[in-house]
Amino acid sequence: MRRMILLGVLGAFLATAPVGSNHARAQSATGTAAVRQYWQNHELEILREYFALLSIPNSARDQVNIRKNAQFIRDMLEKRGVSARLLETGGSPVVYGELQVPGATQTLMFYAHYDGQPADPSKWVDSKPFEPVLRPRKLLPGSDQPKPVPLSAVRPPIGEDWRIYARSASDDKAPIMAICAALDAMRAANLKPSSNLKFIFEGEEEAGSTHLKPFCEQNKDLLQADVLFICDGPVYYSGDPTLYFGVRGIVTMELTVYGPNTNLHSGHFGNWAPNPAWRLARLLSTMRDDQGRVLIEHFYDTVVPLSPAEQEALQAIPRYDEKLMREFGFARPEGGGKSLMELIQLPSLNIRGLSSGWTGKQARTIIPASATAAIDIRLVKANDPDAMVQTVIRHIEAQGYHVLNREPTQEERLRYPLLAKVIKGHGYPAARTPMDLPISQKVIRALKSLRDRNVVLMPTLGGSVPLYIFVDILHTPTIGVPIVNHDNNQHQPNENLRVGHLWQGIETLAALMMMR
Amino acid sequence: MRRMILLGVLGAFLATAPVGSNHARAQSATGTAAVRQYWQNHELEILREYFALLSIPNSARDQVNIRKNAQFIRDMLEKRGVSARLLETGGSPVVYGELQVPGATQTLMFYAHYDGQPADPSKWVDSKPFEPVLRPRKLLPGSDQPKPVPLSAVRPPIGEDWRIYARSASDDKAPIMAICAALDAMRAANLKPSSNLKFIFEGEEEAGSTHLKPFCEQNKDLLQADVLFICDGPVYYSGDPTLYFGVRGIVTMELTVYGPNTNLHSGHFGNWAPNPAWRLARLLSTMRDDQGRVLIEHFYDTVVPLSPAEQEALQAIPRYDEKLMREFGFARPEGGGKSLMELIQLPSLNIRGLSSGWTGKQARTIIPASATAAIDIRLVKANDPDAMVQTVIRHIEAQGYHVLNREPTQEERLRYPLLAKVIKGHGYPAARTPMDLPISQKVIRALKSLRDRNVVLMPTLGGSVPLYIFVDILHTPTIGVPIVNHDNNQHQPNENLRVGHLWQGIETLAALMMMR
Repeated sequence: MRRMILLGVLGAFLATAPVGSNHARAQSATGTAAVRQYWQNHELEILREYFALLSIPNSARDQVNIRKNAQFIRDMLEKRGVSARLLETGGSPVVYGELQVPGATQTLMFYAHYDGQPADPSKWVDSKPFEPVLRPRKLLPGSDQPKPVPLSAVRPPIGEDWRIYARSASDDKAPIMAICAALDAMRAANLKPSSNLKFIFEGEEEAGSTHLKPFCEQNKDLLQADVLFICDGPVYYSGDPTLYFGVRGIVTMELTVYGPNTNLHSGHFGNWAPNPAWRLARLLSTMRDDQGRVLIEHFYDTVVPLSPAEQEALQAIPRYDEKLMREFGFARPEGGGKSLMELIQLPSLNIRGLSSGWTGKQARTIIPASATAAIDIRLVKANDPDAMVQTVIRHIEAQGYHVLNREPTQEERLRYPLLAKVIKGHGYPAARTPMDLPISQKVIRALKSLRDRNVVLMPTLGGSVPLYIFVDILHTPTIGVPIVNHDNNQHQPNENLRVGHLWQGIETLAALMMMR
Repeated sequence: MRRMILLGVLGAFLATAPVGSNHARAQSATGTAAVRQYWQNHELEILREYFALLSIPNSARDQVNIRKNAQFIRDMLEKRGVSARLLETGGSPVVYGELQVPGATQTLMFYAHYDGQPADPSKWVDSKPFEPVLRPRKLLPGSDQPKPVPLSAVRPPIGEDWRIYARSASDDKAPIMAICAALDAMRAANLKPSSNLKFIFEGEEEAGSTHLKPFCEQNKDLLQADVLFICDGPVYYSGDPTLYFGVRGIVTMELTVYGPNTNLHSGHFGNWAPNPAWRLARLLSTMRDDQGRVLIEHFYDTVVPLSPAEQEALQAIPRYDEKLMREFGFARPEGGGKSLMELIQLPSLNIRGLSSGWTGKQARTIIPASATAAIDIRLVKANDPDAMVQTVIRHIEAQGYHVLNREPTQEERLRYPLLAKVIKGHGYPAARTPMDLPISQKVIRALKSLRDRNVVLMPTLGGSVPLYIFVDILHTPTIGVPIVNHDNNQHQPNENLRVGHLWQGIETLAALMMMR
């Protein structure tokens, strides 16, 4: 019954502004103003719906609540006249929605994910992950903390610097809310999408997107589109609307080197029993110089250079490095003077963890039995994950190590003076859509139609998203459209969304939906 | 009443073999045989008493049980005619005992400790820390585990390779039991001590010997002796009776280097934000070469070379290195070919722990905010703990670091490209009693009078014991007399004592008590 009413509304919606009208450009120019007026008049209404969505716990491990999220989002889409349903994947369902626009000649598909990282409530300051609150400004360590404010106590207009604190406020329910609000805004202004719209909202991105690949393979036809927008990740630090045309891939590995087969007393055996922590330090120090340049032979061999269009875009990005250094509290970056944006166009070799024996109050006077470095390699276009790990393994071997992919046996311990274990973890390649494709150019133009902001065009985002799945299976040009603030505490306690970014995200997504 | 009877027994005991008899040497030669015969005839009796002692929990934090231990040991001494009492220290009481031998011209003092490391029962294999059991052989990881056997099920003779499993079976109740059994054996054979005997059994060694220094200062007169025997630590790996004339000191430090003021996303910032784990690896690798030789300037400057007597003793120690390498499962020691015993005569710089970010299943793709190395420095004679830490700090500064002894402020982070924190921990100096003192020579001769075993004379034990307190305050020549097996799982679950070592310990301690 409710659905029939909604479909009726959709009919009315579609009737108001026929596709292919001569007023297309004018509509785009006035479109943003109308969308802006809409959110300015509906701040509380938008946030009320968003708080309801954020209140549903969304760890992919909690399938009961995951399905509540999926149903809630399906209902949100249907309320906007989008034909929506849950597609089973074997894990969390994908919320799939379609809005067919009569006469439209192109199809845009929007991806976001509705699951979030697990949240430990004990680490959140004065609020809970699934009980969203507002704060007039960002929480800063050690400072006079801004108190949480319930939505019911807020009167519009809400300042743009206010923040919503909740798990997934930014990552990645924000684009889902912004898409729905953009549809509302366009409808309210009698504006209409210029293209057919498809939506796929995944429910297990933070759990490794285990079923995404078979899902795409099984739904190839359903998922056909002229462009796929990945609505995930933060906008550039300047806060300007941002497009990214590529992402770094990633592969992880864990390197362990061995000393004695058990922790030994550092007094009785120190100076004699080989200490694996010293060995690990020495081995690691052969891999990378002070500037972050990787010293491993062939590490950079397969990197595909940037095209002239990509180089040009890179040079046009306003440099934000000094502000970030102040924010993050360090005096000198790596990279020998290159900018952050230049440096993330290259693969990186990152130690994400070290462990051996104990530190702090647990420390014991031992020679540890082993020492481990957890490493991630961020990949750029054409870096093969397995081959990159092999490159590192060959370097370790070149330092004299016998490298295993399991614990050594006692026999191996007695045979090889230098023993290492390398376990390759999860990995997938980078992806990069050329900026000079006609569809890329269209998207860039649409974003530039937004008034009073620069647009940041990033050849490659620093982070990793498994874009390659879409590219490899669907062969769809894929472009990232992030909307959230960079300082959102993604994956951490006190995740937040800057309210101004949500408003701008609504404008950005509406502009894309109306692009010609 | 009971005490009076015991004093009567002591009187009888002292009457049998007058001090200064011409038969002194002969007594020493026959002494060991008599002592051996005694334990061979009283295995179960000795172990019954020992199991009762081991059944009393002895963490220094548990003052109720600590006092039960102290009272039990006082009673054990009194049963042997030793005048014993508890001396309060402000923490655990010291059990003090004295046996005055009419006509004796020298006084021997024996130190041991009756407290033990805290024990986690869940990590013990098929037995509990304070419910002692026997096993026919050592527990070995992964092997067919020998089942625990209660004492009541054992029939003598108990094989020498049997082991007693209990907390403090080796560390350090074993010498207390061996001393009491030695007194029994001598009495049974009408042998008598050649010297006045004093006993100090500490009850908080594993808790840092907090009150030992003031205790020694307040009881200087009471604690006068010609030699102090430290009955703690294991005998040499060969199992032979062992004397150590010195111990290494120790000082700990924790080194932290800094990157960003919070963990950063390794994708968005990798290659640009300084990674402290790489920095720590590089910094550590400047401190020590592949062979364990410390590269820090002045690190070895204050080392006092060994005397000819010490060098000679060192050369005479049977080399056990290859067997230990097999036991501990490694193919090549540090030290460039020098023996373990040579290498522990030098100070060591040991990484006892590393930590940064997360490894294993907890690993996250971050650039960690900091990286920490927990370090211990084992000191040899004349190395000053504070000065050694300063030497390391100067080296860190020479690598370009600004070194603090607390967390950096935001201002310091923005000012110094390389920031480190060094926190100095607990420390005390080494001690070494010259081997060529007349009293040292006497002790060596007494040990050599034991039949059918070599005697191992170690200039310095690798481990650390705060001998310096006795040396500095009492000015008493101090010599270590360990009796337990080296593979005793000291400080760990499944602590054990090899029964053969207990028997030999009884013979060793009796030989010292009868030394001339």
